[in-house]
Amino acid sequence: MDPWRLRERAYNPGYVGQTETLFAVSNGYLGIRASFEEGEPSYRPGTLLNGFHETWPIVYPEQAHGFATTGQTIVRVPDGTAIRLFVDDDPVTCETTEVRQFDRALDMRRGVLDRSVVYQLADGRRFRVDTRRFASLAQRHLACLRYEVTALDAPGSVVISSELLTPRAAEGPALDPRQSRALTEGTLEPGLERAENVRVIRTWRAARSGLVVAVGMDHEFDEQFVTHVRTKLDGHRADVAFQADVQPGQTVTLTKWLAYHHGAEDAADLADRAGVTLLRARGIGYSAALADHERVVTQFWQRSEVVWEGASAAQQALHFSLFSILQASLRSEGHGVPAKGLTGTGYEGHYFWDTEAYVLPFLTHSSPNVARSLLMHRIRMLPAARRRAREVGCAGALFPWRTINGEEASAYYAAGTAQYHIDADIAYALDQYVKVTGDADLLFRHGAELLVETARMWAGLGFFSQRHGGRFVIHKVTGPDEYTTVVDNNLFTNLMAAENLTLAAEAVDRVRVESPPDFRTLVEHTGLREEELATWRRAAERMYLPYDEATGVHLQDDSFLDQAPWDFAATPPERYPLLLHYHPLVIYRHQVIKQTDVVLATVLLPDRFTAHQRRQIFDYYDPLTTGDSSLSECIQAIAAADVGKYRSAEEYLVDAAAVDMADTAGNLRDGVHVASAGGTWMAVVYGFARYRWRSPRGPEFSPMLPTRARRLRFPLRIHGSVLDVDIEEHRVTYSVRHGDPVTAHHYGEEFTAVAGSPVSFSGDYHTHDAAPGPAPSDTA
Amino acid sequence: MDPWRLRERAYNPGYVGQTETLFAVSNGYLGIRASFEEGEPSYRPGTLLNGFHETWPIVYPEQAHGFATTGQTIVRVPDGTAIRLFVDDDPVTCETTEVRQFDRALDMRRGVLDRSVVYQLADGRRFRVDTRRFASLAQRHLACLRYEVTALDAPGSVVISSELLTPRAAEGPALDPRQSRALTEGTLEPGLERAENVRVIRTWRAARSGLVVAVGMDHEFDEQFVTHVRTKLDGHRADVAFQADVQPGQTVTLTKWLAYHHGAEDAADLADRAGVTLLRARGIGYSAALADHERVVTQFWQRSEVVWEGASAAQQALHFSLFSILQASLRSEGHGVPAKGLTGTGYEGHYFWDTEAYVLPFLTHSSPNVARSLLMHRIRMLPAARRRAREVGCAGALFPWRTINGEEASAYYAAGTAQYHIDADIAYALDQYVKVTGDADLLFRHGAELLVETARMWAGLGFFSQRHGGRFVIHKVTGPDEYTTVVDNNLFTNLMAAENLTLAAEAVDRVRVESPPDFRTLVEHTGLREEELATWRRAAERMYLPYDEATGVHLQDDSFLDQAPWDFAATPPERYPLLLHYHPLVIYRHQVIKQTDVVLATVLLPDRFTAHQRRQIFDYYDPLTTGDSSLSECIQAIAAADVGKYRSAEEYLVDAAAVDMADTAGNLRDGVHVASAGGTWMAVVYGFARYRWRSPRGPEFSPMLPTRARRLRFPLRIHGSVLDVDIEEHRVTYSVRHGDPVTAHHYGEEFTAVAGSPVSFSGDYHTHDAAPGPAPSDTA
Repeated sequence: MDPWRLRERAYNPGYVGQTETLFAVSNGYLGIRASFEEGEPSYRPGTLLNGFHETWPIVYPEQAHGFATTGQTIVRVPDGTAIRLFVDDDPVTCETTEVRQFDRALDMRRGVLDRSVVYQLADGRRFRVDTRRFASLAQRHLACLRYEVTALDAPGSVVISSELLTPRAAEGPALDPRQSRALTEGTLEPGLERAENVRVIRTWRAARSGLVVAVGMDHEFDEQFVTHVRTKLDGHRADVAFQADVQPGQTVTLTKWLAYHHGAEDAADLADRAGVTLLRARGIGYSAALADHERVVTQFWQRSEVVWEGASAAQQALHFSLFSILQASLRSEGHGVPAKGLTGTGYEGHYFWDTEAYVLPFLTHSSPNVARSLLMHRIRMLPAARRRAREVGCAGALFPWRTINGEEASAYYAAGTAQYHIDADIAYALDQYVKVTGDADLLFRHGAELLVETARMWAGLGFFSQRHGGRFVIHKVTGPDEYTTVVDNNLFTNLMAAENLTLAAEAVDRVRVESPPDFRTLVEHTGLREEELATWRRAAERMYLPYDEATGVHLQDDSFLDQAPWDFAATPPERYPLLLHYHPLVIYRHQVIKQTDVVLATVLLPDRFTAHQRRQIFDYYDPLTTGDSSLSECIQAIAAADVGKYRSAEEYLVDAAAVDMADTAGNLRDGVHVASAGGTWMAVVYGFARYRWRSPRGPEFSPMLPTRARRLRFPLRIHGSVLDVDIEEHRVTYSVRHGDPVTAHHYGEEFTAVAGSPVSFSGDYHTHDAAPGPAPSDTA
Repeated sequence: MDPWRLRERAYNPGYVGQTETLFAVSNGYLGIRASFEEGEPSYRPGTLLNGFHETWPIVYPEQAHGFATTGQTIVRVPDGTAIRLFVDDDPVTCETTEVRQFDRALDMRRGVLDRSVVYQLADGRRFRVDTRRFASLAQRHLACLRYEVTALDAPGSVVISSELLTPRAAEGPALDPRQSRALTEGTLEPGLERAENVRVIRTWRAARSGLVVAVGMDHEFDEQFVTHVRTKLDGHRADVAFQADVQPGQTVTLTKWLAYHHGAEDAADLADRAGVTLLRARGIGYSAALADHERVVTQFWQRSEVVWEGASAAQQALHFSLFSILQASLRSEGHGVPAKGLTGTGYEGHYFWDTEAYVLPFLTHSSPNVARSLLMHRIRMLPAARRRAREVGCAGALFPWRTINGEEASAYYAAGTAQYHIDADIAYALDQYVKVTGDADLLFRHGAELLVETARMWAGLGFFSQRHGGRFVIHKVTGPDEYTTVVDNNLFTNLMAAENLTLAAEAVDRVRVESPPDFRTLVEHTGLREEELATWRRAAERMYLPYDEATGVHLQDDSFLDQAPWDFAATPPERYPLLLHYHPLVIYRHQVIKQTDVVLATVLLPDRFTAHQRRQIFDYYDPLTTGDSSLSECIQAIAAADVGKYRSAEEYLVDAAAVDMADTAGNLRDGVHVASAGGTWMAVVYGFARYRWRSPRGPEFSPMLPTRARRLRFPLRIHGSVLDVDIEEHRVTYSVRHGDPVTAHHYGEEFTAVAGSPVSFSGDYHTHDAAPGPAPSDTA
C-alpha cells in the first residue's frame, strides 16, 4: 500500500458516492467532487465554494420565541468536471464502452487526482484517457483539469466536449438529519454571461442570500492539431467542443482552466475577476501552475507530516486525515471550515465547533496563519453573536451552533442553541492558539473582546445557587453528548465555562498591562466594568461540578446517573446510530452517550481532575458511549491512552482514522469527516505522545508508541520554532528544526531543546496496558 | 344585566373578531361563527364541522425519529351566513349605510342568536332587518337562519341574496402557536353539485384527508309576495336571490335552511343525506324546528344549571360557561371536543386532554350520555394509540397529545408527546365517569382495555431505580406545566400514573369477577398476563414522589427547585404570555409555571396529600404561576378554596369565568376556551361546594358560599339520580330531585337524601379566609 496515494484500480460504479468524496480535490476555498469527466455514473457531482450559500426562512410546524429563523445551505455551483469524449461521434463512457483498464489515484504528496482509463470500442479500437485535476493551493480561485486522449492502436475522429453544468435544484427531503437539508426550489438565477472563443464566463445569483458567483472556463490546446468546433450556452450548460483526428500512438491534450469568484458584489465585477484569474493561469501555463500548487503542498507536509513507521495503512490513513484538513482549510481565508470541508453537502456546509475543538489543534501547531484566519472568521461573527444572545435572553455574545453567515441555523434547539458550550470551545481554542503561537497581537486587538463577550454570556446564563451552597450553576444546557439534552450542570459545560471566565479575566488584565491602547479600545467596544472581572473569577472559582459521592464518579450532569441503563446487549448493530431508530425522548431517558462529554472534559482540562478521577470517568462513561458521532473515537483514544488503556486507545485511533477510509459511518458520500481527521492527529499527538499545553507548565509530553508503529515522528510549531518529536521504541528525541529554543517536559522532566542540539530520553516506550504513568499536569 | 342573554347594543366594527366567537351558535357537530349576514365587516367568518379536517405532512427543519408526521387542521367549510340585502339595487350594510339601531343578543336559555338592525338610507328611508339563527340541537346536521326585512316608513324594492361561500384558502403563517397553523394552499376541491329552484347542494373534498363535506341550502318564503329571481353557482359562491316590493310596515321573511354532512363516504351519498335533512326541515317547518331545538336546550339547563343568586354578572358568566360546553359537546357524537369548540379555528380544532380533565367532570355529572360518547371516542383511538406507542418506544398505548383523527399532531414534542400524562388523565376521567354514573358496561366492554393499555405504557416508561431506593421513577416527561419540560419525576405525572396503574389492576379484577365473558375478550384483545397486574400494583405502591425535606414542599419535578427564581417584578404585563416573549430555554431554567401542575395533583388526588401539604404546595407554587394558560385559574380557584383562601379562590373563579367574557387571554377571536368553561363549573362545584368523589368514600361536600353569592344551587347526576345541592348562607340542603336515594358526606358527616326528603345542614357557610376546614378525603 502506497502511503501517499489513495488508489482505485478498477471501475466501481457501485461506489461512486463514496469515491466522489474520497477523491475530491479542494483548497479550502474551492472544492470539486471526484465525479467522472464522462459525467456518468454519478451520485452527486458538484463544485462547492466555501461560504457560497443560499438562505431560507426556517418554518417550524410549531413556532416559539427565539427559534433560529435563517436557514443556510451550501449550494453547488456550476461544475466544470464534465469533459465528454466522442469517437466517430459516439459517446465513450464507462457505462457504454468496455473498460479495459482503470486506475485512479489521489496523490496526497502532490495534491493531484489522476485517472487513466483504457476504453475498447465495439470495433476493437482502444483509446486511453488520462486526466489530472487539482484545485490550486497557490491561486485559490483556480482549478485545472488536464485531459489527454491517446489512440492506442487505430485512428479515430475525436470530439472533446468541455462543459460547465449548473446543478438542477430540488433535491428530495432529507430524513437523515446529518444530510443536507432539501432546498425545495431552484436557487441559482442566471446573470450576465460572456463567451469568447473557447472562454466562457457566466454568473449566477442565489436568490435569497443575494450571493453571486462568477465561473470562468478557458482552454488550452494545440491549435495545429485540434480544432475548436463550437461554443454553446444554454440555461444549464455551457459547452466548448474540440475536434481532432488522432492517429495511433498520438495524444490529444486539452487543458481546462476553471476560475471561481463569489461574493455579495456586482456580477460584472466578479466576472471580471474570473477573467483575470483565467488570464493569469494561461499566462503562467499548466506546468508552472501545477508546480506552484505542488510547492504549497510540499511545504504543508514539511511542517505537518506525522510519520508513522511500521504500518503503511496507518501511514496512509494519517496522510489522508491531514490531507483532508489541508483541503478543507488551507485557503479558506475569510471563511470557516465546513464539517465536510468542500467534499460534500452534508450538514449543509455549516461551520460547527468542530473547527475550534478538532481542527484548530492541528492547525495551531502546524499552520498558525490558517488557525489565525479561522479565529478571525469567528471574531467577525461577534456582532451576529451579540444579536443572537439578545434574541435568546443571554448577555454578551452567543455563537451559533451551526452557521455559514454568522446567524444561528440550528432548527432543533435541544441539540443546537442549547449547546452554549460553543462559546467556551472558541475561547479555549483562542487561548491555545495564543499560548502556542505567542501571537499576542490577535489577543490584544480582537481576541480579548471575544473573551469578554463570551464570559458575559456565562455570567448571565448561570447563577449562584443557594441550594448548591452558593456555587455557580448553569441550567438547561446541552453538552457535547447530543443523546442527553437540556440538562442542569453539564460537567463539560460548567468546566469549560469556568475556563472561559478565567481566560477572559486573565486576558483583560494582560491587555491592560501590555497594550493600554488596545485596552482602551476594548473598554470602548464592550463597556467593560471592573466589577465584571470579579464576578467572572468568583463564578469560575465557585463553579458547581456535579459529582456522585456514592459511585465516586463525576456526573455528566445533575441527573445523568438517575437515568435507566441502555440495554446495549439488546440493541443490534443495525439500530445504530440510535438517533435514526429511537425517538429522542427514549434516548434521553437512558444512560447512553452519542459522543464523549465528561471524557472530553478530561482531555481538554486534564488538570481539573486527578489521574484517578480520569480513570474513574473513563471506566464509567466509555462503555456507555456509542460513538454514533465521528467526533467521539478520537477523544476516546486520547482518554484511553491517558489512563493507560493503550490497546483501547489504538483501537479508537484506528476507528477515527477509518471513518472515511472505510466509510464506517456510512455517510462518506455526503463528504469527509473533517473533525475526525483533526481528531486523528489529536489521537496521535495528544493521545500517544500525550502532548498537552496547559498553563502554567507549557508543553508536556509523556509519549508511548502504538503497537502498530516502530517509530512515530511529527513536528510541532511552538512560538515560531519547529519542534520535531521522534518517538522510538527505546528513545524519544526532541529537536528544534529551526527557531528559538523550546522548553518542554518529558514525563514531568523539564528540558530545553536548541536548534542543532536534540534532546533524547531513553526508556521503554512500548505500550502495555497497565496502571497509567504520570499524566500531563497531574494535580493529584 | 340579563343573566340569560349576552347583548351587544351598538355596532362595534372594532370587535368583530371577538363577537364572531362570542355569538357563535353551535351544537357540537356544526358551529357557525357570528359573522354578519351582510358579510362585512368580518374577521374570519366560518362554519366548522366537528372532525372535518385536512391533513398535511409535518415537515421539520430538523427531523428526528418518531416525530409526529400527520398534521391535522380543522378547515372551514362553506358558510351560509351571508344574506345580502339590496334596496333599489344598492347594497345595505353596516359599513355603507347608516345604522340607526343595533341590537344583538345570544339567548342562552333558548340557544338562539337574534339581531335587529335599523338602517337609514341616504334618502332617509329606514328598513329594519331582524335575524335569528340557531344550530339545531334536535337535528345536528341542521342550522337555520331566519331573515326579515321591514320597511319602516317608505316603500322599497328589496333584493335578498342568500349565499353559500366557500372559504378561500391560504391563511398567513401563525407566529402565535395558539392559533391555527397555516395551510399554505387551497384545501377544498369542489365535487358534485345540485341546484334546483331555491335549493342548492354542493360537495367538497379535502384533498389529503379525503374527507368529503356535503352542504345543502334551501329556502322558504312567501311566494305570493316574494319572487325567486335567480340561483347561480360559481367556484366559490352559490347565490339564491329573491325580490320583493315592500310597503311601509310590511315585512319580507326568508327562512334559510343549511344542512351539513361530512365523512369519508361517497360525495353523492352525503349529498343525498343533506337533501334529506333539508326535506325534513322544510317538512317540519321553522316554528316546530325551533321548538324542537329549544326543548333540548331547556332540558340541558334543567339538569345542568348552576344558579348563582346575588350577582347577575356572575350568573351570566356561569351560564355562558355551561352554554359553551353545551355548544361544544352536546351533539358531538362520534367526535371529540375541540379546544375552542366549534367557535373558531384556534389550536387547529384539536382535541386535547382538556376534554377529559376539564369538560368531562361537568358532563359526567349532568349529561352522562355525552360523557360516554366522548369516552367512546377516545376508546376508538386505541389502535392509533398503540401504533403511536410503538413509534416512540413505548409499551401499551400512548394517546396523542393533540389530534383530530387519532394520530399525534404535536410537532413540538417537549410540550406535546412528552406529556405522557394524557394517558392517565383519560384513565382518571374514565374511572370518575364509571364511579359517578355507575355505568359498568362501558368499563367492562371497552374501558378496561384502555386502562390495561395505558397501565402498560406507564409500566414500560418508568423503572424501579436503585438510586431511588427501588422506587419507581418516570423520566423525561412533561407535566401539565408547559413552562417546564422534559423532566424527571414530574410529581403530577407520577401520581397520576400510580392512579392509572391502580385503576387498571382494580378494573381487571372487577371485570374478571363481574363479567367473565368481557374478561375473556379483554385477555384476548390485550394478551394480558397475570403478572402484569402485580407489576402495576408494585409500581403504583413504590411510585417515587419528589419531596424536598429542606423546604417541606413537594417538588414539581426532581430539579424544579434547583432552577433560578423568575424575576416577576421585572416582567412588565406586556411580556405575558411569556411564551411569546422568551426563548423556551429561558423559561425552562426558571421557577415559573404556565399552568398548575403540583397544584392540579392536589385537586385531582387530594387524598394523596395531607391538608397541611396541600397548603404548603399552594403557598409555594401559586405565586410562581403565571396563568398564561386558560387551564390554570379554575384549578387555582379550587386549590385556593381547599386551603381556605376563599378570597383568592373567588378571584380565580372570576378570572376563569372572564377569559371569554372579557377576552382576558386576548385570543377570543380564535374561539372560546372550552376547558376554562368546564373549569369554571369545577371552580364552583369542586371549589366552593368542595365536592369530590374519591373512592372509597363517594361523594363528599364541604360547601362554602362565595362572597358575591347569596345562594348557590346546582344539580349533580349521581348513579342516575339527580341530587340538588343548595347552599345558602346558613343552610345547605341536599335533595334528590328524582331517582334512588343518594348517600354522601357533608363536612365528613354521612347522610342519605331520598327523593321528597331533603337533608339540610345548618351552619355558617360564609367564606372568610382562615385556616382550612376539613377537606374532602383528608387522610392526614
